[in-house]
Amino acid sequence: MIDYNPNDTIVALATPVGIGAIGVIRLSGKDAISIANTSFSKDILGVKSHTLHFGKISDEEKNIIDEVLISVFIAPKSYTKENVVEISCHGSNYIIQQLLALYIRQGARLAQPGEFTQRAFLNGQLDLSQAEAVADLIASNSKQAHAIAMQQMRGGFSNEIKELRQQLIDFASLIELELDFSEEDVEFANREELRKLVQQIQSVIQGLIQSFQLGNAIKNGVNTVIAGRPNAGKSTLLNALLNENRAIVSDIAGTTRDTIEELLNIQGIEFRLIDTAGIREAQDQIEAIGVEKTMEKIAQSAILLYVFDVVETPPEEVAKDLQNLADENSKILLIANKMDLNPYAEYKHYEAALSIVNCQLSIQNFIPVSAINNMNVEYLKERLYKTVISEDITSNTIVSNSRHVEALHKSHESLDAVLHGMDSGVSSDFIAMDIRQALYHLGTIVGQVSTDDLLANIFSNFCIGK
Amino acid sequence: MIDYNPNDTIVALATPVGIGAIGVIRLSGKDAISIANTSFSKDILGVKSHTLHFGKISDEEKNIIDEVLISVFIAPKSYTKENVVEISCHGSNYIIQQLLALYIRQGARLAQPGEFTQRAFLNGQLDLSQAEAVADLIASNSKQAHAIAMQQMRGGFSNEIKELRQQLIDFASLIELELDFSEEDVEFANREELRKLVQQIQSVIQGLIQSFQLGNAIKNGVNTVIAGRPNAGKSTLLNALLNENRAIVSDIAGTTRDTIEELLNIQGIEFRLIDTAGIREAQDQIEAIGVEKTMEKIAQSAILLYVFDVVETPPEEVAKDLQNLADENSKILLIANKMDLNPYAEYKHYEAALSIVNCQLSIQNFIPVSAINNMNVEYLKERLYKTVISEDITSNTIVSNSRHVEALHKSHESLDAVLHGMDSGVSSDFIAMDIRQALYHLGTIVGQVSTDDLLANIFSNFCIGK
Repeated sequence: MIDYNPNDTIVALATPVGIGAIGVIRLSGKDAISIANTSFSKDILGVKSHTLHFGKISDEEKNIIDEVLISVFIAPKSYTKENVVEISCHGSNYIIQQLLALYIRQGARLAQPGEFTQRAFLNGQLDLSQAEAVADLIASNSKQAHAIAMQQMRGGFSNEIKELRQQLIDFASLIELELDFSEEDVEFANREELRKLVQQIQSVIQGLIQSFQLGNAIKNGVNTVIAGRPNAGKSTLLNALLNENRAIVSDIAGTTRDTIEELLNIQGIEFRLIDTAGIREAQDQIEAIGVEKTMEKIAQSAILLYVFDVVETPPEEVAKDLQNLADENSKILLIANKMDLNPYAEYKHYEAALSIVNCQLSIQNFIPVSAINNMNVEYLKERLYKTVISEDITSNTIVSNSRHVEALHKSHESLDAVLHGMDSGVSSDFIAMDIRQALYHLGTIVGQVSTDDLLANIFSNFCIGK
Repeated sequence: MIDYNPNDTIVALATPVGIGAIGVIRLSGKDAISIANTSFSKDILGVKSHTLHFGKISDEEKNIIDEVLISVFIAPKSYTKENVVEISCHGSNYIIQQLLALYIRQGARLAQPGEFTQRAFLNGQLDLSQAEAVADLIASNSKQAHAIAMQQMRGGFSNEIKELRQQLIDFASLIELELDFSEEDVEFANREELRKLVQQIQSVIQGLIQSFQLGNAIKNGVNTVIAGRPNAGKSTLLNALLNENRAIVSDIAGTTRDTIEELLNIQGIEFRLIDTAGIREAQDQIEAIGVEKTMEKIAQSAILLYVFDVVETPPEEVAKDLQNLADENSKILLIANKMDLNPYAEYKHYEAALSIVNCQLSIQNFIPVSAINNMNVEYLKERLYKTVISEDITSNTIVSNSRHVEALHKSHESLDAVLHGMDSGVSSDFIAMDIRQALYHLGTIVGQVSTDDLLANIFSNFCIGK
């Protein structure tokens, strides 16, 4: 957790690192304007908020660092609700480093990742889930990811959570009223109605939790490992999926050594395809390292594309490989490659062998292709998509943040305890405690309840300069 | 050449592509403000120049694309001297693409690389060498490159060229005066003084031309290929130079297949180190591709680091390799690796063998190292630097642009013709013609003389958005 000291003026590059026409450096804090003023060729101490000023920035030895445009925002009319100055300079890394060093020498300190947005949160500009959405919005690279983040940033998700909390608070107040009159053994709240209300809230929470599968795939992409024996055509399949010659292919087994990673976007979902070295008894030291890496990659993946050569590899061998490779966390697609050479390989030939090793695969996950001829590759893409998005989720709010889904889970559990308590007739104060617990967990989502550790964790995942 | 039509409003992303807190989109042209106004939640049609406005941008279906800050610059108080609007949005590629598409639908067109600066040049904001310096400034990544570009952008180099031209114009006017009185056979200009003046100008031009070796190395870096037999320790040397484990190393010959490129900064000069596959009779198809690539890389390089194993490779073999590898364009450093295993390998052992194959190497270019023990690696870096920067060049102006150096060369040649003409007593009108030619070439540097092709060529090397 970065201690918030409004006397600290923070500085960071706000634009991506790299070569571009311009770069923007952002200063925020009490002294932002006076620090920027020191090295600037014009006086910006008395200027109005939301104005732009062209001039030169020079270092202490009067060497001109750059000609820039300076934007001035006077507190509280800024993103952080503090004084903010943005310096739009030429997009050279060297210039940016010089300017950052200059401002640090003159009293600013380098901002931690997310520190600008953290200040916006602490100064009441945004709630916590809105602040988190800022990072998601920046990272969004598809229509779906953008829509989720924008809805969350503009408070849609927060409102839904606040509504759930309000219902729970209403419910809790009835229960707590009973506590006040506990001597008299009255029931202000009809137990049956209470039960219905809790179940209703649980069902909304459950819907939000379920939306996370989609939300997570949209936001974080899907790790997809391509594995199989040497010369099964894994790199050829990668090239066919990407529609380009990314990996070196040859008919010599063991051509690929280092793992190759590329992104494939299917209907807005990003699949991180990971081509791996072929798996066999390693012939040498370099190959042994490669095989080890492949096993690691499979363990980290959500989907395993097991590729085999329908001519060379009989069903029993396929089954044996899957037994070794399959990881409980990965969904498996069985890619029967080189179908042009053996068009008679069908799922039923593999069914028996697979069932012996206890590998449950349906015919939908058996995909005959000829990577070299681009045959059935589009169907494979469709299957990849369907493997992730198993049903149409049309819920308006899609949860894409694992912190939120964890809080929703905990809240759901506390409500289970409420129901269980009502069933077993525990006293109202225990029920009230469980409700407060459910409220607490929902509250962490929007930041109505927060700890320093939590904030540190959230904002450290931001990019610097936001 | 992009035809300049001030009615065209151009748009582009001005910040680097990538994830950052913010991205900036720039619009320039007559309709910049009205186009930006259409989709914005506030009215910016009547606002003052150099003001900032916070609001939402929505598409035609009222979907909010982003919450942004808009900067307004009213002609001629802008970089291009046209109306300019800058939109500071969240740094998401998706949002940036949506905004660009929106503005294009509403009448802007995507800017060509450098088109904003081209407009600044055509509207008289900058001369041509200043405009070129903008691109150099953005690309600058060292103190030296920054200083050269900044001096050029602020007009230092332009002034020097303009002064040379003025001197030549004064000279030309004397000669042309003689032409007017050619019937009378008078000499207004003392031939000896004229000769001195031309020689003086040539010597300034020569100094500028010579500064290009340094300027080019500072600006563009130096291609440096590491080549040699398998297992000579090339990748180990690369790792030692970079001080990190960049390349996979093993004691198996032929570990490296794909070429690996990394940057090494030595005192502000960037060396692009290119590690290559070992050169031997290829064992297989993949290796043959690797060797071919190595030969290509050597042909494109300025420096060849030939690495050999002092235990395994006798002088005659080293000489044979160099005979095959040496390229007339590359300077060679002979890296005697694994000196820890044979500390007795000295330059004199190689001298005779090298002279037989007619390879001129001095002892300074023979560098015994032990890459694995990091022995003598710092000395190698020093030698690399000295190979590029052979002498201290303290000239104030350093030319770093190959177009400029070419114009300087041509101008120098025309002045040679002037001198030659005076020697051989040709008539003044021929001399005047050669002077005009020299003036023309100098004029192309600052853009006092320019053609559409030239401009197209210059600005197409800019990044988009500048």
